Formats: sequence, structure tokens, C-alpha cells
Amino acid sequence: MKARVTVTLKTGILDPQGKAIEGALKSLGVDGVASVRQGKVFDIELAGADEAKAEAVLKEAADKLLANTVIENYRVEIV
Amino acid sequence: MKARVTVTLKTGILDPQGKAIEGALKSLGVDGVASVRQGKVFDIELAGADEAKAEAVLKEAADKLLANTVIENYRVEIV
Repeated sequence: MKARVTVTLKTGILDPQGKAIEGALKSLGVDGVASVRQGKVFDIELAGADEAKAEAVLKEAADKLLANTVIENYRVEIV
Repeated sequence: MKARVTVTLKTGILDPQGKAIEGALKSLGVDGVASVRQGKVFDIELAGADEAKAEAVLKEAADKLLANTVIENYRVEIV
């Protein structure tokens, strides 16, 4: 089973990397971009076919390792 | 207008970061994960309301800066 975990910064947390990208796009002449925030995405292949179990495993993985839940949100999708 | 650009490694390109995450999950006792590949996600706010123009701007941004198209694929979504 394939799944995707998307990790993004919580609202209000500063994102200097996103700000740098905004600046770089401006200096490259890409207009119309108001703001950029960068996150991470994990494409995960799971053994077994039980969706509920898969979701539990992915949540455990996100809580323990993939996301820093103090400053980041995560979303789990089975693809 | 809000949009999301997702950048992932092309098939066949080695992902040592993903491999490290796999190993870390195993040693943390998270079972059932067969493979992990890490990518990047950019949440972008755009000025203006023209979807076609927004998509063109996002593609330009991805080609010029956000993705290395030699080894990465990208996908543009208007949210």
C-alpha cells in the first residue's frame, strides 16, 4: 500500500527558507508570488493491505520521527 | 490564490535520506514500513485570480528554482 505524509510548518512559525525562496524568485524575474512556505513530503510504501492499521503506523511514524509536532502539522493520506 | 508545488525524486534516483528514515523507523520500533522516499512541498500564495496565469507562473518557478528537473519531478496544484 502506498501512502503520503505531508509535513508543513504551523501558522505563525517563521519560515526563513520560504522567505529566501520568495526573494530568489523575485530576483529570477518570476512575478506574482506573494509568499512561499516550504514543507516536506514522505512517500511511504507499507507492507500489508489493512488501511486502518496502515494509518496507525503512519501516525506513529509521523509523531515519532517525521514531524516535530511542536512547530509542524502533518497529514496522512493513503494513495 | 493558493497553490501547492510538490517536488519528488524521479524513479531510479537514489534517495539516501529516505533510506536513513527507513532505518530510523525500524530502530524506533515502527513496523510495516517497506520504503520511504522524501520530497519537498511548497505552499505558495499568488497575487491575482487568473488560474491559467498562476499555473504558468508556478511552472516557471518550479523549472527555474524549486525543482532540479534532471533528477526531480514536480506537480503543480491550485488549492
